[in-house]
Amino acid sequence: MMSVIRIDTTDKHIINLASIVSGARSILYKKVDLLAYDCDGFTIHKHLPKAVVFPKNTAEVSQIVKYCSENKLPFLARGAGTGLSGGAIPINGEVIISMVRMKKLISVDLENRQAVVEPGFVNLKLTNSISDKGYYYAPDPSSQYCCTIGGNVAENAGGAHCLKYGVTTNHILGLEVVLPNGEIIEIGKNGVLDEPGYDLLGLLTGSEGTLGIVTKITVRILKNPEGKQTVLAYFDRVEDGSQAVSDIISAGIVPAALEMMDKTAIEAVEAAAFPVGHPKDIEAVLLIEVDGIAAGIDEQINQIVKVCKKRNVREVRAAKDEEERGRWWANRKTGFGAMGAISPDYLVQDGVIPRSKLPEVLRKIAQISGESGLRIANIFHAGDGNLHPLVLFDARKPGEIEKALEAGSQCLKACADVGGTITGEHGVGIEKREEMRFVFKEEEILAQTNIREVFNPDNLLNAGKLFPTPGRCVEIKKEMKA
Amino acid sequence: MMSVIRIDTTDKHIINLASIVSGARSILYKKVDLLAYDCDGFTIHKHLPKAVVFPKNTAEVSQIVKYCSENKLPFLARGAGTGLSGGAIPINGEVIISMVRMKKLISVDLENRQAVVEPGFVNLKLTNSISDKGYYYAPDPSSQYCCTIGGNVAENAGGAHCLKYGVTTNHILGLEVVLPNGEIIEIGKNGVLDEPGYDLLGLLTGSEGTLGIVTKITVRILKNPEGKQTVLAYFDRVEDGSQAVSDIISAGIVPAALEMMDKTAIEAVEAAAFPVGHPKDIEAVLLIEVDGIAAGIDEQINQIVKVCKKRNVREVRAAKDEEERGRWWANRKTGFGAMGAISPDYLVQDGVIPRSKLPEVLRKIAQISGESGLRIANIFHAGDGNLHPLVLFDARKPGEIEKALEAGSQCLKACADVGGTITGEHGVGIEKREEMRFVFKEEEILAQTNIREVFNPDNLLNAGKLFPTPGRCVEIKKEMKA
Repeated sequence: MMSVIRIDTTDKHIINLASIVSGARSILYKKVDLLAYDCDGFTIHKHLPKAVVFPKNTAEVSQIVKYCSENKLPFLARGAGTGLSGGAIPINGEVIISMVRMKKLISVDLENRQAVVEPGFVNLKLTNSISDKGYYYAPDPSSQYCCTIGGNVAENAGGAHCLKYGVTTNHILGLEVVLPNGEIIEIGKNGVLDEPGYDLLGLLTGSEGTLGIVTKITVRILKNPEGKQTVLAYFDRVEDGSQAVSDIISAGIVPAALEMMDKTAIEAVEAAAFPVGHPKDIEAVLLIEVDGIAAGIDEQINQIVKVCKKRNVREVRAAKDEEERGRWWANRKTGFGAMGAISPDYLVQDGVIPRSKLPEVLRKIAQISGESGLRIANIFHAGDGNLHPLVLFDARKPGEIEKALEAGSQCLKACADVGGTITGEHGVGIEKREEMRFVFKEEEILAQTNIREVFNPDNLLNAGKLFPTPGRCVEIKKEMKA
Repeated sequence: MMSVIRIDTTDKHIINLASIVSGARSILYKKVDLLAYDCDGFTIHKHLPKAVVFPKNTAEVSQIVKYCSENKLPFLARGAGTGLSGGAIPINGEVIISMVRMKKLISVDLENRQAVVEPGFVNLKLTNSISDKGYYYAPDPSSQYCCTIGGNVAENAGGAHCLKYGVTTNHILGLEVVLPNGEIIEIGKNGVLDEPGYDLLGLLTGSEGTLGIVTKITVRILKNPEGKQTVLAYFDRVEDGSQAVSDIISAGIVPAALEMMDKTAIEAVEAAAFPVGHPKDIEAVLLIEVDGIAAGIDEQINQIVKVCKKRNVREVRAAKDEEERGRWWANRKTGFGAMGAISPDYLVQDGVIPRSKLPEVLRKIAQISGESGLRIANIFHAGDGNLHPLVLFDARKPGEIEKALEAGSQCLKACADVGGTITGEHGVGIEKREEMRFVFKEEEILAQTNIREVFNPDNLLNAGKLFPTPGRCVEIKKEMKA
């Protein structure tokens, strides 16, 4: 085999993989290099990969996958590594297939409102590439300035504007996928609605990298709304703020975004890089944005103000201009990181509840906080009931990591108990595998792992993610086969 | 076994099935009764079922399925039988499990915008049940006055208002499903966004009754829009009409509905039960509805009129009141049946194309009509590129059925050739099995039939639907296993 990379190892797998991804620094295999890939945005577990390869095109991905498959080497795909549930952590010493060199914007079709990107293309770059023509890409995770659309597909990422516009899966029109046997398939290839046959597009989206590796993505792009207005509403009581959320939706308004932060969260964001002057003594702030036809904007804002007043809002501020609006969003979107200003460490959780249960679950979270002795901040997508409790802790204190993990898990249980679920947009990864049992019976988990087996029969691709450890599932399966 | 039904047959399967669904007329097995179940809305193929059973609850469905499964009896579920691609036709002499007795509206939760229905609940009844409180259910197939929501889920049904609001799959929050082994699972059980794990909800929705039998459905309900306006726009040239469709969407307007009828269609609807006085000499009419915040409606209509004028519209009429609006919609929604006024028989097709290809594909359909010697009318959801060519023929003339089927298939090929697909909302059923090859490679079909095998390993449930006859697929599979 020929290789243009100088490889100073005798490991035949490294040598063979290097020959597939020829070119400078297209494979990493030394420990010092691998350390940067031992975790993703979920930093509590760390594992070294066997190697990291950087393919440049679909054919290379397919060859790498075939090689790994034939040689029984575990492997997984990684985008920017901003995932928050550990989906890209190589817990089995995987060969990591990094998609960061497949970062082209392949085409934009304004007439049919579509764009085609490679998986390593950064989320925000898409909007930046088409905004001068009056278009944008809707899903906007807080990490959008660096996370990749491939990673967004794997996790079915959400974002502040998903209340009105839907999460990633609602914006994906087609995928090219390398299956775990190296075969390349196209699904939803034509970017049209409702393809015949089974909805593989939906199945692959959000499958957390366990069914295949996405190598090309057709996304829906939207026309910029004609008008937009953003307000901050401050509440003295958190109950009033949560009730206002329900009331706004009940009034028939669907804001583009409807975010909430509680007192602890406000303390953090005001102490961090993008303070905006939130009053320090309030219990909740809502960040509300409406968009659409210009003529309807003022009326919607008036209705929202009316609803907030009925819930004893202290003050409503409207953004004076785009610059102020931008600062408010920076304040919100850097909210998780802002926890660093008030706590050495934090663990972000991601539960979903029916909107009407907001007051009840926030009370429960306060109780969990009290019992664990750990502060919990709440920054979340209130409009769609997607909570993000941030458990603050100090990893240097013995036992605090475990206590934080336990408190996070209890928050998820509280969500599941009111008819909610354990992830809205961050995925299950390795973090919430056992919590899957809060929402699924064994048979229901089995129905899913059976599907994984069809795509990924040797379980070499991202094994050990998304589902609880087999245990009882395997037994049931044996019984069923018997 | 005990049975309260008098069964005058010695067929042990009939006797045993009757004991599961006790009660008057809960099983049909005589030829004279079975004749009513030999086809659905796709009337070209007819096959008698072995029996028709009418379960009253999920437990009975599960028992029937278990019985069929253990005794290797093919079976399938049927709603109102309005499907247009033959999905409910018992081509293997199936036991039909009719869902029409499971027709309860189980609950409505206005605060969280959800309703739970049994599968036999009629689509339009849902809106009728909640409209006094200001809510509605969005997916509105033309058959909504009689089709069931269970059938809508099986076919992922669309409708005129799916342009803005999405097809059935976008409105399904949870399903209870009886799997082909009789096991009962709940998916998306909590009616919250983005459940963890694989998107089984999306996978089951639109799987055309081949993966399981839906026994309970949680749907999203929407608040009635504050304002609504409907206009008719008449064009002398079909090209201008199609170009106006593209231009409206390009202008950033998303109408609630954007329908088109061509000259032949207009001739039919004006000759049928709900004429509204369309000019007979125009080539195309657009039926356009906008809805939303009241303050924005007039501006949107003004923009639409401006766009239409640029495309040489002859006249734009606005609906004077709800009554006139209702008549216009009746005229459109009974359009397929109206073909009976100008032709003894018709075959409706259902292709999807990128909106920008509308003029090109309409020309191609005119050419197919010319070559086949059969008239083809077009009534369709222009806004989302979902065409419905209606091939007019006379079944009494030898060879015309075959000619009509061939012309229909050519229309689908024309859609696929411009990057479109072969069904937008009617499903594949038995009608378009071979046309699946227009859009899928063998490996892509195999990826889907492999999933079917996980759920439906003995292929007793609705076998022979949705996918082309195995042939080459099976060979590939053998090669892969080897």
